[in-house]
Formats: sequence, structure tokens, C-alpha cells
Amino acid sequence: MRLSQFHLHTEKETPAEAELASHRLMLRAGMIRKLAAGIYTWSPLGLRVLRKVEAVVREEMNAAGAVELLMPSIQPRELWEETGRWEKFGGQLLKIRDRKDAEYAYGPTHEEVITDFARQELSSYRQLPVTFYQVQAKFRDEIRPRFGVMRAREFLMKDAYSFDVDAEGMAASYAKMHAAYTRIFTRLGLRFRAVLADTGAIGGDASQEFHVLADSGEDAIAWSDTGRDDAEGYAANVETARSAAPGPRPAPAEAMREVDTPTQKTCEAVAELMGIPLARTAKSVAVVGQDAEGRPQFVLVLVRGDHEVNEIKLGKVPGLADYRMATEAEILEHLGSEPGFLGPVAPAKPVRVVADLEVAAMADFVVGANRVGAHIAGVNWGRDLPEPDTVADIRNVVEGDRAEDGGTLRLMRGIEVGHIFQLGRKYAEAMGCTVLDAAGKAAVPMMGCYGIGVSRIVAAAIEQNHDDAGIVWPQAMAPWTVAVCVINPKNDPAVAEAAAALHDELAARGLDVVLDDRGLRPGPMFADMELIGIPHRVVVSGRGLEAGTFEYRARTAAEAEHLDRDSLLQRLGA
Amino acid sequence: MRLSQFHLHTEKETPAEAELASHRLMLRAGMIRKLAAGIYTWSPLGLRVLRKVEAVVREEMNAAGAVELLMPSIQPRELWEETGRWEKFGGQLLKIRDRKDAEYAYGPTHEEVITDFARQELSSYRQLPVTFYQVQAKFRDEIRPRFGVMRAREFLMKDAYSFDVDAEGMAASYAKMHAAYTRIFTRLGLRFRAVLADTGAIGGDASQEFHVLADSGEDAIAWSDTGRDDAEGYAANVETARSAAPGPRPAPAEAMREVDTPTQKTCEAVAELMGIPLARTAKSVAVVGQDAEGRPQFVLVLVRGDHEVNEIKLGKVPGLADYRMATEAEILEHLGSEPGFLGPVAPAKPVRVVADLEVAAMADFVVGANRVGAHIAGVNWGRDLPEPDTVADIRNVVEGDRAEDGGTLRLMRGIEVGHIFQLGRKYAEAMGCTVLDAAGKAAVPMMGCYGIGVSRIVAAAIEQNHDDAGIVWPQAMAPWTVAVCVINPKNDPAVAEAAAALHDELAARGLDVVLDDRGLRPGPMFADMELIGIPHRVVVSGRGLEAGTFEYRARTAAEAEHLDRDSLLQRLGA
Repeated sequence: MRLSQFHLHTEKETPAEAELASHRLMLRAGMIRKLAAGIYTWSPLGLRVLRKVEAVVREEMNAAGAVELLMPSIQPRELWEETGRWEKFGGQLLKIRDRKDAEYAYGPTHEEVITDFARQELSSYRQLPVTFYQVQAKFRDEIRPRFGVMRAREFLMKDAYSFDVDAEGMAASYAKMHAAYTRIFTRLGLRFRAVLADTGAIGGDASQEFHVLADSGEDAIAWSDTGRDDAEGYAANVETARSAAPGPRPAPAEAMREVDTPTQKTCEAVAELMGIPLARTAKSVAVVGQDAEGRPQFVLVLVRGDHEVNEIKLGKVPGLADYRMATEAEILEHLGSEPGFLGPVAPAKPVRVVADLEVAAMADFVVGANRVGAHIAGVNWGRDLPEPDTVADIRNVVEGDRAEDGGTLRLMRGIEVGHIFQLGRKYAEAMGCTVLDAAGKAAVPMMGCYGIGVSRIVAAAIEQNHDDAGIVWPQAMAPWTVAVCVINPKNDPAVAEAAAALHDELAARGLDVVLDDRGLRPGPMFADMELIGIPHRVVVSGRGLEAGTFEYRARTAAEAEHLDRDSLLQRLGA
Repeated sequence: MRLSQFHLHTEKETPAEAELASHRLMLRAGMIRKLAAGIYTWSPLGLRVLRKVEAVVREEMNAAGAVELLMPSIQPRELWEETGRWEKFGGQLLKIRDRKDAEYAYGPTHEEVITDFARQELSSYRQLPVTFYQVQAKFRDEIRPRFGVMRAREFLMKDAYSFDVDAEGMAASYAKMHAAYTRIFTRLGLRFRAVLADTGAIGGDASQEFHVLADSGEDAIAWSDTGRDDAEGYAANVETARSAAPGPRPAPAEAMREVDTPTQKTCEAVAELMGIPLARTAKSVAVVGQDAEGRPQFVLVLVRGDHEVNEIKLGKVPGLADYRMATEAEILEHLGSEPGFLGPVAPAKPVRVVADLEVAAMADFVVGANRVGAHIAGVNWGRDLPEPDTVADIRNVVEGDRAEDGGTLRLMRGIEVGHIFQLGRKYAEAMGCTVLDAAGKAAVPMMGCYGIGVSRIVAAAIEQNHDDAGIVWPQAMAPWTVAVCVINPKNDPAVAEAAAALHDELAARGLDVVLDDRGLRPGPMFADMELIGIPHRVVVSGRGLEAGTFEYRARTAAEAEHLDRDSLLQRLGA
């Protein structure tokens, strides 16, 4: 490829609106251009990268036995009514009316469409197992699209759907996709981690996310440092991560007593005043859920002072599926106090107490006294107040927690680029999809679904791989792997010719090489090649030709080297 | 590819709703499945064909120097307001409101988006010429989507846009695309024709359509049979096709006289009654256009009795851009007669007369007398009535017309699969897209746009290439080019093994081969392979193995042959 025949448009200025490095660099490199909020054009340069990712995804999906098809982006409302998601999916679903006033959505995902396809195409267990996939534009009407293509509204996704006769088959299909995803991110040259995840709006039984590791990631990941190098320990998104259960509750050692805390409204302030570790305090959070009859129920939620409530976990506690924070009036009514001094001891009215596992295992702890300006220390379950009504894991794990597999939990940040689910029969059942089993009886197949954010991978890779000069592409994702830069081609035809010959030879040897024949001065030319992240740069100059050498520099190297032709070819793997 | 690892789902029944052969066969072969009106899922089999077309299109676009990018499908209303097309494009534009009530359209075409991209990316004539293209889903909200993917609402399109500094450059870019399209349809193995076309809603100066020739085509094409074999004569869509100008008007030879035509309300009936050729009569069509001041103007339109008015041509006559048919009351007011007996001689009020070129060249012709039950014969311009106010080409050409290039016009049917336009400055001007020219002055670039209906090509190819047994794919579009069919693999492992070995060898030699290892009986297996149109079928059976031969049959051959291994490889071009 001759760069003069391409369309490259880089910018020196750092765009003001871009917060993330990937967003800034994609704009500066001219990979994307914003058309509207969360809607981007992929320039020729950007598309080259996107297609490289797409190709790896497709190859590995095919290698895993998945079969590609192509579903429409526009989906009729009727299908979404069958699964109840027309309403449930929420505001991200872009709803559309056509000229005949029929209602459609721009597909944010395709469970309904594939299940409709399957119920028409699949009739016998002999057709199973089968995994269908597609690579296609999706639309999710994000309230706050941001970070460029990282959280765009229109984006490119690979989505796959498996159909099996039973749970064992589903688990096998799921495992195949897990392996394929691992190969995909490995081939793309990314540092990544598969972690247990919440199933969220897609639903189902089990799921894992694949995260590209980067400090700027929106997600927190907990992983168990088992002391081994192979990184095979427990790992989970913090929204669902568990730590090892606490040890047995110690026996009470202190008497219960009130402590004056005139202005101390937080556990931190109380612990500081009392000179005790924060872990000796318990934080009380007042919420309103529903009782068994569906009536509003005031609930006091307790986590240790140094812990945070995990909203997703709390939402899974019976009666708290749709919980909300309690109002000050409700708090006053049930606890007899203002916020800042709340606690489970002697509330004004009997309240349901939901305690985190760690809180239930505490002895001699400190809580609010339900009276302004006072806390209570030396509190013990069973002695000073009843045992909690519910004990559950309702907190975020923290760095240093003991992991279930015996390691120590560490935290890092990740960017979710893949998500795989065991759906079970949820969609097939709702949509009446059945096949005849070996006994000739109608059976509802077990499904899995598997997504990869193809366009998001591009941004995530940049978050993980960049420096002050620009993008540092992993080899497999680079728009070109080698740039041949020509110095002063217009005044030195021999140099231009030698560069073109080198370009042609490298291309003939199978390298994805670009010839920068635009005639720029060396400074701006090199800056462009660094900005757009080409892994290998070769400079062809008059001086080099005389000396019989080429100047070679790896994108990650501090210095250039002068290599003869054979050494250069060797260095490039040509 | 093992068919047992694929998902093939054919149907024996002919779907009742499908009118066209391509629609019927695509449904029976299981290539597509309807999701909603004009919205289809491409099954794994259908997608293989679609991707083959896409690959050829992409290769030839790249070879022609076009640069691929990817624009969003969702486009903001503001851009379409800039060109006035938000309203003008009409009901085919699928309009969408997002959750913030901002308005968008699902792109039916991308002139606005590419011009917006260009005005930000292009600043100097040095960046020109450049041609951008993409392959992408489009949506046009057809009132009557029909014929499967032939006239779908969501469809796959390749659209390209060129930018040049001047008209000469635009013509050169246009010529390159013309050549690329010719190579594309040639490589796809289709009988096609490039024809002059109307520019329609896209606008611009010049355009050509590429038609796949098929009797079922929606379009009529006129082409000049110049007696040469190379088919290089004049060709045009009938909506815009011209014939050679008529010869000079003969001198009057008859006196004008009234003819009694008590029940003869059509030219055909009058000609039959009078025993004269239909070509001696002139048909009068009453319409209402606008005069120079924009007021409604009654107009009498005349074409020869054996000709039809061409609405597109008539709409280009000054004052008739938005013409409508006249009401009976308007006809009575201006001509003093009921329809069926209308004519230009002695109207009740003075009317504008618009005559077709052929009518203006007639002498001694027959028209209605503007009186029920009467016509007038021997009518001559200038003698019996004033010369026409306007003379223009306003009719459809007919088979046998003399062509402008000296040949004879023939008609055939075609399916439009490509359309190329010279747009000029229309979009760039409206959207303020300029570049600095060599003199440093801002100049508006000249654009071209170039579309190919990728998904429609699949249906068009079937219309042109099918028989009673099913589809007959051209080699380049076939889902696989060779099918290796195994007889009785389960009971005869040696046969299964030999078939698998042959499959692997053919694949290793670069053939796109499928192994039908589903274990069907020969009849249904062969029927499937014929239905889905595989060009070459090889049968591996126990009897054949004993004899050292394979049964080979080309899809288009009447009989199978028994070939040894070498002959088979030769026949397959392996």
C-alpha cells in the first residue's frame, strides 16, 4: 500500500472533549470521526484496524465450529413482546415506527431474532448442537455515550448463540466459546482476564466477562493471587466477586457502652475519635424493600465500616430486588434518629436487619445509637440485640481479602470486551422453541449467548498500549505492521526507487507493509508513524543507500539501528 | 467444509407467497428467512453467497484505487436538512427519535455523511482525487417490499463517493468506477448491460445503471442492435432511452375531414375502423402543469397512437415538473368534449400543446374532434392548427425504433444492480465542502456516487440462472463450487474415508468444496445439491471405488460421467 494512494489525516492538536487516551489518540490518528453523540465514522485507517480484529474473531469462531449468518438490524416489536423485553430492556432500546406505524427496534442484541430463527429451522435433536454467530452493527441508546467508541451508541459486535439438547451440552458449547475467546484475545496480543460476572439484563445461569486490563478501565476486577505464575486463580468482576467466608464469631469480651460522638456521623470519624480500627465498626444503611406480601418493608443493611455495600448483591437478597434508599422520615419513624447515628440496637420499631457475612461474624463492634451525638461500642449479636434476620454476602470485596481458593484477592481495572452466558431455557421457553429429542418428545433447547465488542476492542487495546508519542499496536491489530519511510523522494529518485523496491519485496514476503511516499519531512513523517502505532519503521535514505544499510526502529525501542538487508529481513520476520 | 457441521435447511414445498423464481428458490434453499416485511435473515448458506459477491466487489473497488471506510447507519436529521432531503427524500426515509427526542434517519444512502466527512478531512486539492467506499446495511422504507431480497427494506449495499477538483477529474473517476463495475459483473459470471439512466432522487448530471438481464426484470432496457457482436451500441433504460430523431415532416397530401367514430374512444379502435395503421393516429393526453408564473396550466400532450407517454421525460418539459392528469371538468372546460375524442384542433379555449418529436413530424394524421363520436383525419400542422407550442421527446421508445447510433433499438428486461452518477457540485455546494485549489483559492469539489446492491445481486443472479431443479450458480457466486456426495457412509466406512480424503485433497488444491456427509439417501442428497446450485457434483460410492472411478456431473449437464481421479481433477480445474 502506498500512503499517497490512501487517505491518512492526522491531527497535532489534542481534542479538548476527549478524556480517555484511546479517544484522544483515535481522534488524533484520524481513525474515527464523530457524526453525532455516540455515533462515529471509521476512517480508512480506523477500519483497517477494525477489520483485523474482525478477521481474528471470525477465524476463531469458525475454528470453534460456530456457523456464521446475518440477522437484520431492524427487529419487530412483536418478538420482543414474546420475551417481555420490549418494556424490560429499558431506554437503551432504540424504538422505531415505520411509515405504516408498525413498531421496530434497532437490535441491541439478537436473542429474540435467533430464537425465532431457531424455532423455524430446528426441529430435531440431530441438528444440535449448533452455534450461530454474526458480526454486525448494534445500537444501544446510552444516556451518556462517552469515551469515543469505548461507549458508543452504534457499535460493531460479534454475537453468537448456541443451542443444545441439555445442560451438559450447553456447558460444552459454553466451554468451546470460552476457549475461542481466550484464543482471540491472545492472538490479538492483549493482556486480558476472564472473570465471573453478573448476568444482568440478558439473564441466565452463569456468565463470564473478558476484560482487557487497563488502569483506565470502568470495571474493577478482583483476582486471587494464589502465588502461582499461571494466573489461573479465582477472578471475578467486583460487582459479583466473593471472598472466603469469615472465621467463626469470637466470644464477647466487652460490655456494651454508649460513646459520645457529638459530630461524628461516619464510621471513619467514630473510629478516629475512639482510636480503633475502622474494621471494628459497622455501617448502617436504611433501605426500603418489600415483605413477603409485597408491602413496603423498612430494612437496615449492615456492612463493616471499611466495606461498601454492593448494590447488585444486595438486590439479590429476597425482598430487596427493587429496593430504594429510605427517606429521612421513614428513618425517623423506624429508628427514632437522624442519619449519621443509626444502628441495629433498640430501634424505635422492630426492623428487618440484613447483615453482611463479615458483620455477622463480628464481636464487640461499634454502631450508631439511634440518637443524635451517640454511638454504642462493645455490641454483640445475641446478647445486645437479636441475631440478624438475614446474613448474606452484600459487600464489595477489597484488596487483601482472603479468596475462596486460598489466595489473596487483588484488585485491578478492566475494560469489558467480551461476555459469555449460559442462558438455559429462558428465551427458548418464552418463545416456544422446541425440537424433538431422541425419544421423539418435544424438548426446549438450552441456549448460550456470547458477545464480543469488536469496535470496543480497538479502543481497549489503545488504553492498554500507548505512550506519549501515540498508539503502540500489538502486531495483530496494527493497520500495517511495517512502515517504509522515504527521505526526500522527489529530489532523489534512486531513494524513491529503492524504497518502493523494499516495499514490494516485503509485501511479496507476506508482510502488511505501507510505503510512506507522501514526501513529508522526516520529523512529521516519523511522528505520524509513531502516532498511528506502526510496530516496525524502516527508513530509506540516500546516506543509508550509500552505506548499504536501512535505519530500523521498533515502535517500542528507544533507539534506531542500522541494519543491512538480510538483518532487516530477519528482524521483520520476513 | 463438512455439511454435517454446517446448518443446511432446505424445503420441498414451494412457498405460496413468492412470485419470483429467485424468491421461491432462496426460500426453498433456505438462504433467507423473513423476519418482517422486507426484512430478512441471511442463513449460513445465503451468507456464503452474499460474502462471495461482497469479496469480488471489494477486490475490484480496491483495485480501482477506492479506499474503504465505514460510516454509521444512523444519521442525524441536521445533515439531511442541509441538502433539503429530510423532506424531499420522501417516505422511504426511515425516521427515528432517540431517547432525548433528537431526530435521525437510518441511512438509505450516504451522500450527506460522506460530504460531512469530506468537508472536515479534505482541505487541499493535493488530497484529490479520492474515492471512498463502504459495504453496509441500508434501509429504505418501501411501501410495498416484495420479491424477497430483490426489493427488501433492509439490504446490503456497496456505496462509493468520489471527490475531484474539476469536471474532467470527475469524469475520470466515474470512468474508473464504470470499468470496475464492468469487471465486477463479469467476474461474477452474470450477463449484464450498462445503460444510460435517469438520475432520479440522487440528482446530478449523468448516470448509468448496470442491469442483470432477466425476463423477470422490473426494468425495460433499450439497446441498439448495431449488427456488431461486441454489444457496444447505445443502451438506455426505457425511462430515459432516446431513438433517432424522425425524418422531416412530409408535405400535406390530404384534406382535413371529420370521421364518424360513434363508439371509438381509442386510437386502436379508430385505426381499426378506418383501416389505417395505428402510427397514423395521434393520442391526446390532457394534463395540468404550471405556467411561467406558477399558475395551473391546462396542457394537451400528443404522442403517436402506437406510442406511450414517458412520465419521466414529460416531467422534464418546462412547466410539467409536477404535472397531474386533468379532471373531466377541466377537459370539458378547455376542450369542450369528454375524454375519448380529444384533439388539438379547435379547442374550446386556447391550450398549450406539447407534441412528441414523432407527432410533430407527422402529416395527414388523425386526432379526436373534441366532440363525442367524432375524429378528424388528414390533419396537418401549420395548415389546420398552429405548430405545437413545445416539441420534445416525451415517449417511450419501442422495439424497432431507429437508434441514434444507426442501429435498431431492441428491448429487453433487466434488474438494476448498480447505478453510477456524476453528481457535480450539488452536495458539496449545499454543505459548504471546499478545498484550496492550486492557486490557493477555495474550490467546491466535484463528486460522483456509485452504488451496487450487493444483496440484490444474489437474487438477480438466480433470476438469470435457474432451472426446474433449482439454482444454477455462476462459479464465482456458488456457496461451494464442488460437492462431494457420499453414498451410504455409515454402513461403508471405506467409502466415507475415500470421500473425506477426496474432499481434503480438493480443499488443499484451493477448491471451495463441501462434503455432504449428512448420510441422506442419494435422491434427497442430489436434490439438495441441485436446489442450492453447486456447479460440480462428485459422488463417491462403493461401486465407484471398486471400479476406480468417481461419478461426476456438472450442474448444467444432462448426464453424469464416470471419471478416474486424474480426469476428475482436470475437470474440476484442480
